[in-house]
Amino acid sequence: MTAVIASLMATELAEQAAVLRGLVARRGRLGGLAVAVPAAPTGIVFVARGSSANAAVYGRYVFELLSGRPSFNAALSVHTRYAADVDYTGFLAVGISQSGETPEVVDVLRRLRAAGARTVAVTNGDGSPLAAAADWCLPLDAGPELAVPATKTFTASLAALALVAEAAFGGPWSDADWAAVLDGLDEVLADDASPRALATALADATSLLCLGRGVVLPVALETALKLKEAAGVRAEGGSGADLRHGPVAGYPAATPVVSISSRGALWADAVEVEDWLRDRGHPVHLVSDRTGSGVAVPAVHELLAPLLLVVRGQQLALHSARARGLDPDRPAGLSKVTPTT
Amino acid sequence: MTAVIASLMATELAEQAAVLRGLVARRGRLGGLAVAVPAAPTGIVFVARGSSANAAVYGRYVFELLSGRPSFNAALSVHTRYAADVDYTGFLAVGISQSGETPEVVDVLRRLRAAGARTVAVTNGDGSPLAAAADWCLPLDAGPELAVPATKTFTASLAALALVAEAAFGGPWSDADWAAVLDGLDEVLADDASPRALATALADATSLLCLGRGVVLPVALETALKLKEAAGVRAEGGSGADLRHGPVAGYPAATPVVSISSRGALWADAVEVEDWLRDRGHPVHLVSDRTGSGVAVPAVHELLAPLLLVVRGQQLALHSARARGLDPDRPAGLSKVTPTT
Repeated sequence: MTAVIASLMATELAEQAAVLRGLVARRGRLGGLAVAVPAAPTGIVFVARGSSANAAVYGRYVFELLSGRPSFNAALSVHTRYAADVDYTGFLAVGISQSGETPEVVDVLRRLRAAGARTVAVTNGDGSPLAAAADWCLPLDAGPELAVPATKTFTASLAALALVAEAAFGGPWSDADWAAVLDGLDEVLADDASPRALATALADATSLLCLGRGVVLPVALETALKLKEAAGVRAEGGSGADLRHGPVAGYPAATPVVSISSRGALWADAVEVEDWLRDRGHPVHLVSDRTGSGVAVPAVHELLAPLLLVVRGQQLALHSARARGLDPDRPAGLSKVTPTT
Repeated sequence: MTAVIASLMATELAEQAAVLRGLVARRGRLGGLAVAVPAAPTGIVFVARGSSANAAVYGRYVFELLSGRPSFNAALSVHTRYAADVDYTGFLAVGISQSGETPEVVDVLRRLRAAGARTVAVTNGDGSPLAAAADWCLPLDAGPELAVPATKTFTASLAALALVAEAAFGGPWSDADWAAVLDGLDEVLADDASPRALATALADATSLLCLGRGVVLPVALETALKLKEAAGVRAEGGSGADLRHGPVAGYPAATPVVSISSRGALWADAVEVEDWLRDRGHPVHLVSDRTGSGVAVPAVHELLAPLLLVVRGQQLALHSARARGLDPDRPAGLSKVTPTT
């Protein structure tokens, strides 16, 4: 039995049920958004770094599917370093920064606005420079987040992106789907025995692969990032489709794989990649709403499943830190706001 | 002294001087391209997987800078798995596949064309399904490539993308700049003592970080991929800006860093990240046109420097395989065409 070490990360992780309830309560009351979103945007571009860039990967899938318009993450240095003169007329630019203070993200959102884009900010920093730089801001209202590894603000960013996409373009989900997410989140937070057991099983692994595809890709990327930040594990996140195009050769067959997935469009792909990896000799651990998953989540609408799956990833990272005797709140050499410009 | 093992990868790597000369000789004769490129495209989207997706990262920077239009890589599963109904009217879609056979890439290029995009293929498979799916194709004419780790077709893809961007939108470089690239490539291929020495110095490293930013980011990604494929090294590629937002915590201070850069807009950033990593205790090895680099390349136009830098990465991967007694041509479990759909 691992001794339980009190941590900010654990506290903030537990707070996200209330944070998401607060955000979802604002459904149907995002009318102000209309001033900031073109009726038929030419495309949607996300501006973010770090874990917010992982949230942006979720955003690009959800926005492209709901809006029917091309969606993508900006290459920030095109604007900050090469001073490109690019026409973003008709585009919607969405800036994401938990603090709202990351200078590079604020700078690029301002530049895209000057280049013709309408702009929305998603941030926990309501009075932050990012909020001020945007035509409209959805504050996360998540309260202070002090642990370096973001948890509640990450999940809240995913929910906020889904709510903005739904308000702007209409959502394929129902009231009942959102209720199921909130109930599911309570369930996931109330019982973390399975991610704790997985963390114990993986306590000796120096290297890990975290896989997910489609809307679950950002969960795989974020879980790998959290495992690095909180537990110092060399975890690499990516899609199984990419892995087979070469990267797998860098990982000996003993390397454990955390395969994250949900029922829906990519289920069969996940099963195929898992079988292929088992055939190569990799131990494969499932985080999923599928029957037989070692780390389970309740089944919810496919496009909202990442909101539950990522909490399992956060729990895995927290317990991995504890299993290794590390303080998850203060990774060596990292600070909460990274001053890249 | 490492014994030299004959390999297809070494042979194909050496052939790229001739391949690039052939491609560059077609400058000014890409008139047919005009039928496939809108005069003022709404945006440019790249369709690729694996090392071609790394080439696409180079493409997105060069096309956004030269065209002044938003450029990005497509999320393939949006189209193949979620069957999104997305409007790509006015967009230019560029499909990249060395073989031209990757079913997923062919499928997505066809779907984007049906969704309104004009389409260009960049491929070594002149009569391939990808070439047939596009409005216009620039064949790489690189000859057969048999080693699993792509070398000459990767560098040729970068050159082809620069040539297409230049033909469509005008280039910021001159005839002399291209001549300098070809001469520089001869020089880099004629003397690989420095990457061989670096491979020897890194022969015991199980894990590596490969860093690059801006137009050099794809070189960092591709060098990491080649190190995995050819030499089984867990190399992770990325930008120093991203690294500081968390991932660095996953790497102990002993982890060697290969910092790839060139003079120009991102030089100061590279120096800053290198200093920060040395302060953390990482051994930092430079691959650059900057004075004092352990692995040097001749200075050429900033946006074309990746064509030389990536060859140093290929040489590093080849010699890393040899230093570890591995056959670089046949990584465990990989095949030349990956059948993701």
